[in-house]
Amino acid sequence: MAAASAKSSRPDIEGAQTIDSLLQQRAPVPLLLTPGPLTTSLATKEAMLRDFGSRDDEFIGLTGELRARLVQLAHGEDHHVAVPLQGSGTFIIEAAIATLLRPTDKLLVLVNGAYGERIAAIARRLGRTVDCLTWPEDQPVAPADLDRLLARDDTTTHVAMVHCETTTGLLNPLAETAAIVSGHGRKFLLDAMSSFGALPIDLSQTPITAVMASSNKCLEGVPGLGFALIDKAALAAARGVSPSLSFDLFDQWRGFESNGQWRFTPPVQVVAALVAALRQWEADGGAEARLGRYQANFDCLTAGMAELGFRSILDPRFQAPIIVTFHEPIESWFDFERFYRGLAKRHFLIYPGKLSKRASFRIGCIGAVTPADMRRLLSAVSALIAEMTLEISKPDGVPL
Amino acid sequence: MAAASAKSSRPDIEGAQTIDSLLQQRAPVPLLLTPGPLTTSLATKEAMLRDFGSRDDEFIGLTGELRARLVQLAHGEDHHVAVPLQGSGTFIIEAAIATLLRPTDKLLVLVNGAYGERIAAIARRLGRTVDCLTWPEDQPVAPADLDRLLARDDTTTHVAMVHCETTTGLLNPLAETAAIVSGHGRKFLLDAMSSFGALPIDLSQTPITAVMASSNKCLEGVPGLGFALIDKAALAAARGVSPSLSFDLFDQWRGFESNGQWRFTPPVQVVAALVAALRQWEADGGAEARLGRYQANFDCLTAGMAELGFRSILDPRFQAPIIVTFHEPIESWFDFERFYRGLAKRHFLIYPGKLSKRASFRIGCIGAVTPADMRRLLSAVSALIAEMTLEISKPDGVPL
Repeated sequence: MAAASAKSSRPDIEGAQTIDSLLQQRAPVPLLLTPGPLTTSLATKEAMLRDFGSRDDEFIGLTGELRARLVQLAHGEDHHVAVPLQGSGTFIIEAAIATLLRPTDKLLVLVNGAYGERIAAIARRLGRTVDCLTWPEDQPVAPADLDRLLARDDTTTHVAMVHCETTTGLLNPLAETAAIVSGHGRKFLLDAMSSFGALPIDLSQTPITAVMASSNKCLEGVPGLGFALIDKAALAAARGVSPSLSFDLFDQWRGFESNGQWRFTPPVQVVAALVAALRQWEADGGAEARLGRYQANFDCLTAGMAELGFRSILDPRFQAPIIVTFHEPIESWFDFERFYRGLAKRHFLIYPGKLSKRASFRIGCIGAVTPADMRRLLSAVSALIAEMTLEISKPDGVPL
Repeated sequence: MAAASAKSSRPDIEGAQTIDSLLQQRAPVPLLLTPGPLTTSLATKEAMLRDFGSRDDEFIGLTGELRARLVQLAHGEDHHVAVPLQGSGTFIIEAAIATLLRPTDKLLVLVNGAYGERIAAIARRLGRTVDCLTWPEDQPVAPADLDRLLARDDTTTHVAMVHCETTTGLLNPLAETAAIVSGHGRKFLLDAMSSFGALPIDLSQTPITAVMASSNKCLEGVPGLGFALIDKAALAAARGVSPSLSFDLFDQWRGFESNGQWRFTPPVQVVAALVAALRQWEADGGAEARLGRYQANFDCLTAGMAELGFRSILDPRFQAPIIVTFHEPIESWFDFERFYRGLAKRHFLIYPGKLSKRASFRIGCIGAVTPADMRRLLSAVSALIAEMTLEISKPDGVPL
């Protein structure tokens, strides 16, 4: 899968350019600076401009390419299998837990944000035994704490962690945590929703039982599809475990292996868009290039926002260049709702905060976005601040 | 939601026509004559040519329009609510069962095909108590049998039926069955996957607790989304019942009602395509016009196939104009694999059979398809038969 197949993601660049120029005549579409769905390339969206028979050879080929690319991307082809699943990222997290944890197993969730808490909530609902080891939202998982806990707890069978906590943008220590879980002979589940495809995940080096992610984050596909890369031996041992037919990843895997088809109707356009996005991912230079672009977006964003007086909540050592959480200014001119709408009017969509205690907002660095876009955003923020502070300082100022 | 909003599904008909002409310069895309995913209109696919912020007002508006249109389509606005769910049709069936059946409830499934069997399999996996009342695949559900059974069985709390069994194309009797279930004071779940939007379902007249269907059948959207129309009182009583967080339709509903947003990332392009498809559905004349077109497709298909010597398996009285199951010819020239590939080469995709005992194949009548398409198909079938019979009659005939 070298340049040739990557190139075929734009089979008709003439047509694509013409569609682009047609779209540019329409009402402007906002740039999404969110944790996903996010801004995707035209080539990715254009892959959805046709219908596919879900049981036909052509689509079976797309599914095969999708599964092969996903597992290769994380260097898992010798021991892991890719199992895509219809639905949102939460669905694939639930499916992995439903498939891999037996009723007698116990899950320990490492929590420092809303997505860690969600893993615990999913497992509890399924009736599984769950413990949480918790850190403050602005602090990473501490592998030494985990090591001590596992040393005295032999009932925990599985440990789950969120790689990049989208709650804050914090990066948890993957290699150290995986080594400790593996060293204690436990299984490790990684929620890599907002890191997969950009931050390094190497299944040939790092012991991870299952990595779960989705189509619409750093891979820059459209939403509607999750996937898990699962250790083949662990999955092969999971026949009949899932209490859910739809979420049985063993059955889903066997379905793909038997005839290349999906058990249940796949979102064919979403699959086609993700394959197109994966071809572009490769043609653009893979994870290193993607992370480089996100890092450039991040640097541009955080430097510019700092100049404008905004502080990000995280210690830079713990920050991933995926999404940045900023403190809300305490000055009276700031009101998030008006800030959001002012930026939306200027065709930028940002994201509310999700911190449990502090007023904050978030700006994403991922998607088909470049530092030039970030500079346009910063100009818009600057103009908006001028407007909002002027409004508040007017003696007869009436809120907009 | 009259002509004006329907018209807005094609905001830029000039652009659409130009995209159409661009697409026509590309390799031909096969016509899908399958039970879905199926052929959709350009306006529907074109709605996916942009990104949406899933928590932004514009998308909240689309979600609201989607939910309102779905419930109005089945005349349920006074007592039912629409709860869309990410994923395939099977997911929404499982979610409805997970949400509405308590562990102490008992489900009776009326089975005359693979999709009835799937409902039973889903409920059993969830640990619910399940009974089946079964008829042959070519016979409809007999309401009198159900009446007798419910008269002597007071443990069944819910009854489930597939409206149009895609296994065969058979239409089960909706009004009579619903009346009997309701008359015995039980709850009725209807799998209307391949009927919703074309065959009449009137929630103001017919007592149905929940109707489940998906985006990619008679509504002619793209796949990736299911939905349930659920009796509000039944849903309101279902807090905390679901053993699955992802499939909890009570929580999903409360999420929509609280802020208009999806709990978990929605497939934004699939939602936009379905809204575009629903606007076209209305502009085209609603369920009556849709059924009329499918009936015309069906009449053209079955008359033409009969002339070519193909027999459909069902008594015409039980046949819905959705999908037709044909006996495989017993003559030696026929081989389904070659027949399928011969039609695929001519840009028509048909569907394998799903009967448990007899060799058969299926041709769908639904999607953005007209009788003119059916006439082109019949010409292709005719030419293919000539080719296949010639091949077999050649003294030195070598299989193609």
